[in-house]
Amino acid sequence: MTMMTMLPEVLFTQNAGLTDALIACINNKTKPLGSLGKLENLAHQIGLIQQSTQLALTQPAIIVFAADHGVVAENISAFPQDVTWQMVENFLAQGAAINVFARQSGIQLHIVDAGVNHDFGSRETLLNRKIALGTRNFAQQAAMTAEQCQTALQHGLRLVERLPGNVLGFGEMGIGNTTAAAALMHKLSGIAVADCVGAGTGLAADGILHKQHVIEQAVSLHANVSEPLQVLATFGGFEIAMMVGAMLAAAERRMILLIDGFIVTSALLVAAKLQPAILDYCVFAHCSDESGHRKMLAALDAQPLLQLDLRLGEGTGAALVYPLVQASVNFMNQMATFASAQVSEKSE
Amino acid sequence: MTMMTMLPEVLFTQNAGLTDALIACINNKTKPLGSLGKLENLAHQIGLIQQSTQLALTQPAIIVFAADHGVVAENISAFPQDVTWQMVENFLAQGAAINVFARQSGIQLHIVDAGVNHDFGSRETLLNRKIALGTRNFAQQAAMTAEQCQTALQHGLRLVERLPGNVLGFGEMGIGNTTAAAALMHKLSGIAVADCVGAGTGLAADGILHKQHVIEQAVSLHANVSEPLQVLATFGGFEIAMMVGAMLAAAERRMILLIDGFIVTSALLVAAKLQPAILDYCVFAHCSDESGHRKMLAALDAQPLLQLDLRLGEGTGAALVYPLVQASVNFMNQMATFASAQVSEKSE
Repeated sequence: MTMMTMLPEVLFTQNAGLTDALIACINNKTKPLGSLGKLENLAHQIGLIQQSTQLALTQPAIIVFAADHGVVAENISAFPQDVTWQMVENFLAQGAAINVFARQSGIQLHIVDAGVNHDFGSRETLLNRKIALGTRNFAQQAAMTAEQCQTALQHGLRLVERLPGNVLGFGEMGIGNTTAAAALMHKLSGIAVADCVGAGTGLAADGILHKQHVIEQAVSLHANVSEPLQVLATFGGFEIAMMVGAMLAAAERRMILLIDGFIVTSALLVAAKLQPAILDYCVFAHCSDESGHRKMLAALDAQPLLQLDLRLGEGTGAALVYPLVQASVNFMNQMATFASAQVSEKSE
Repeated sequence: MTMMTMLPEVLFTQNAGLTDALIACINNKTKPLGSLGKLENLAHQIGLIQQSTQLALTQPAIIVFAADHGVVAENISAFPQDVTWQMVENFLAQGAAINVFARQSGIQLHIVDAGVNHDFGSRETLLNRKIALGTRNFAQQAAMTAEQCQTALQHGLRLVERLPGNVLGFGEMGIGNTTAAAALMHKLSGIAVADCVGAGTGLAADGILHKQHVIEQAVSLHANVSEPLQVLATFGGFEIAMMVGAMLAAAERRMILLIDGFIVTSALLVAAKLQPAILDYCVFAHCSDESGHRKMLAALDAQPLLQLDLRLGEGTGAALVYPLVQASVNFMNQMATFASAQVSEKSE
């Protein structure tokens, strides 16, 4: 059995009758044609995902995957590695931005240790799926073994099987992971490394240039790697690999996937290489201020909903976009039609 | 006593100590510097409005002002005038987009008849501030008398005095009011009429050109009008004038003003000519798909938060942006600091 056969197949059903019914439902609402803009596109997409004109959002969740990265040995981050575990503690103590925004939006938050370089002991609210105490340094060798990568994917799949709802947002924490994501972006999109790297948590210009050189040398070292799961194992992080598995499982279950920023979208690049139909399940929350994200989204032909210059990760964009997802569903379910409200239609 | 002395004076206090305290509060939160982007700017602004680092949002409200426009006789709208009163009925029956979005965001909605061409009878949930059964046709004469304009402003002031909360969004309904707003925009900003007109509720290209010509001829007819309140009385609508009064009163009371789309922003153009400091109280909800809005916002040096291609009015953008306002306040009040969470700061 190959690795691929263990992963879900993602299909997206096009249905002309449903498409027409959704368009009619949207256009009959008491508003000028098209006047709800991107919310109308979103409602249409959710209708296709849910195969219905009766839309529903149930028990939304965000999973934050945390892991450490061996490539921090190359001095590519503005913050020390310890911040990964310290921020996990902050998540568990409800003190981080994602805690605040998820709570505000009524989203259940799950924190996963996918491979943090720290012993948390036994913690009731932390899902322990630790693969190792961080990846290896991909500037010297592949970040993970094929077996580790496979284990991470399978953990991601199984985490999603436990969820009761139909909306899943993705978030991450891992010092060094914009470096991993930039390498994945370069390998999977062909975009030049210089256009994939950015400031991460706050590098100055010389730091960004150093990060670019580290990635370029690593790309040379691993020049023969090209297959998506090989690329993931070579450059990725455990949190990224686990997200890939979770994304595939969520799309297989026909959930709405809320895609956050640069690192989450890099995981989606991998997932979309494996199962292109996954993109039809994705709501792109925002365009990050991390400089590669705009080009990464363009490579996926993705239209992000928010432009707030966020670059925090953690799934914060996914949490912040959720009220717009609710608004799309609510206008479909709650607005009157021209007929029901006896409002005159457009003059001929 | 002149008209001006009846209107509130709007001041905005700059305070270097408070500015420093707000910056410190924002930067000490457990996140990379600046990584919450526009939400950080918003939190800072709200702190200056509320003169505190302890931010609070209380009993948010949106007022939707509805009125009719005599200029519809020039055939400048895609929808018949009856849609104004029919949509007011839809608001009262909870069936319109603004009902759905305000309910979702926990915002109290108030509907005001500022001058609709319809007898609603006595209705418990409709605030009757009717000035007349619509304005006169500004293609032939001034839309309203100076007295009508003054009455509308005063109604707006007094409506705000009744509100218990500290956040006020503005919405409107009035077939023909993008024509009035475009004329106001031209007169108050100097931008060419062709760059001020758009499709409104759905004109085709020939309809937009006709609308442009109607405005250009009216501008010629009223060439001697230049003082802001004269411009308002000549081209405005009762809903727009009432909004101007409400905006001035809200800023005087140090409320957060949620500015919606093209028509609401045209009212703000008038208010800002009278009291420039009002802009410091404004959160610009979105950039509308109505073509003049982008330039109108630029004329105010305003940075809108959402770009969703909305062009519905009713205050829908104001309702949709409110969760982002909440997020700004919540991260300030609820996030841990680097010190409280014992998270390491950026490496030197």
